[in-house]
Amino acid sequence: MYAAVRHGLNKNSMSTSAHSPKLAIVAGGGPLPLAIAKAAEAQGREIFLIGIEGAAAREIENFPHTWIRIGAMGEFLNILKREGCKEIVLIGGIKRPDLGKLGLDMTAIKLLPRVAAWMKAGDDGLLRGLADFLEKDHGFKLRGAHEIADSLLAPEGILTTRMPSKQDEEDIETAARAALAIGALDIGQGAVACRRIVLALEAVEGTDEMLRRVAGLPESIRGGTEKREGVLVKLTKPGQERRLDLPTIGVETVERAALAGLAGIAVEANGALIADIEAVTRAANARGMFVIGLAPSRIESLGH
Amino acid sequence: MYAAVRHGLNKNSMSTSAHSPKLAIVAGGGPLPLAIAKAAEAQGREIFLIGIEGAAAREIENFPHTWIRIGAMGEFLNILKREGCKEIVLIGGIKRPDLGKLGLDMTAIKLLPRVAAWMKAGDDGLLRGLADFLEKDHGFKLRGAHEIADSLLAPEGILTTRMPSKQDEEDIETAARAALAIGALDIGQGAVACRRIVLALEAVEGTDEMLRRVAGLPESIRGGTEKREGVLVKLTKPGQERRLDLPTIGVETVERAALAGLAGIAVEANGALIADIEAVTRAANARGMFVIGLAPSRIESLGH
Repeated sequence: MYAAVRHGLNKNSMSTSAHSPKLAIVAGGGPLPLAIAKAAEAQGREIFLIGIEGAAAREIENFPHTWIRIGAMGEFLNILKREGCKEIVLIGGIKRPDLGKLGLDMTAIKLLPRVAAWMKAGDDGLLRGLADFLEKDHGFKLRGAHEIADSLLAPEGILTTRMPSKQDEEDIETAARAALAIGALDIGQGAVACRRIVLALEAVEGTDEMLRRVAGLPESIRGGTEKREGVLVKLTKPGQERRLDLPTIGVETVERAALAGLAGIAVEANGALIADIEAVTRAANARGMFVIGLAPSRIESLGH
Repeated sequence: MYAAVRHGLNKNSMSTSAHSPKLAIVAGGGPLPLAIAKAAEAQGREIFLIGIEGAAAREIENFPHTWIRIGAMGEFLNILKREGCKEIVLIGGIKRPDLGKLGLDMTAIKLLPRVAAWMKAGDDGLLRGLADFLEKDHGFKLRGAHEIADSLLAPEGILTTRMPSKQDEEDIETAARAALAIGALDIGQGAVACRRIVLALEAVEGTDEMLRRVAGLPESIRGGTEKREGVLVKLTKPGQERRLDLPTIGVETVERAALAGLAGIAVEANGALIADIEAVTRAANARGMFVIGLAPSRIESLGH
């Protein structure tokens, strides 16, 4: 047993991947779909990208791909079957779509009553419902992005040269408590605190917009480039389906946080995705900011 | 006993006011300080307004008044004593001041360690600490705005022609739950929900800025002037000192909510101040919106 584990370790990703079924990457916005595509290909895994129109980056066309409207559920299922994809990963941001412009096909229209029921349980309910539909009704296996490429998961500890000060640690706790409170209501994943005061909470506007708001607050209650203060914390919602919608940060998050005068960013270790850890670390170091992966035990101790 | 109550009812405000001690109205921004000044004068009560520089409206000069910097604590105490004010009401908005520009006097500087300790308990801790300082250390009596002019308290029930629809009622509950969750952490008092989704949460940016943000969201996820949807809810923070910092709405709140496409506004009956009920009702009716005072029992049933 011990020997098997030891021998298996290095070969693990190659050997599973070689036997892994073809993977459909359903691509929303941002750099993560591309990062996962590259990671999966590097593992020797066969992939097919399905880019959501209006969301996915043009660069998905560097991989085997097609484009799809978000309401074309029948077409989506047909593509999955035609391409022989057995596993699916849903990744990248999607703006809440305009219901009038979804372009629903018959399969989607028949699904609407169930979608409505899922939506009553909020964002997370919608994603869980969709996962159930794909898995139980159609036999696909939904995988989390981190199951495909665990190199995208935030590691535990400090990534940067700068370390959080005592004040930063207090701000992390203040923002984390706030993020957990709104997460418990399935409202959002992010909060910004500075000097123990919560400056902003994320609902549907998204992290970038929240950070833009903080940058617009008077400098007297936040940090600045001279003296960085305050922290962005992004956490999974308590009890959320972790294969779907893990909190994500990237270089743009660091840049926005920098403009807001923040000292750093904290996410849950193994509970958040970082699009490109090296680039994020480099960007944070260049601005004298920290990025930290919080131990899950620390976050649990803050929960109610 | 019964007779005394019955006889006392009509004369109550006049007779108490005639014997009421002189009232200091410490005036921040917005229309409420003026409304309270008028109400107190109408009761025949002697008043003195202390306008906070940079916050209070110029119109306070229509009453016996002086102006003061926010950091001039010794001067503040001297004014109260000189004017013979025994009771104090703190009312109106104050932006979180720039610590470098407070212009602290010696009394304020000596008070700083205690202020720092109060601030560790958040906004509410700061107000409670200040109340204790004025009452226990200096013998003044701090009064809530609603104790002076209960006509400013939101009544229970619907003020407007328009009534909340079933969907509006659901949005009220969604937003109220969110407001209670952030209130419990002493973060803020307001939330906006539309179609059961929380669109925005209020932290330090204030209600107007939150409503401006909602107005900037895509129309597909919020209401519009054609079909108003969504609700602003403002509630007292669970366990907050109710003499201080009651949630407040006014005509500007209605106007901002209208621009955000909202169907209405809900506050806690007897737990929120309305600067001018008639003007607010008129403004809401003109835009086809509702304003409702929620029964405290209904809000309690939503709490955790």
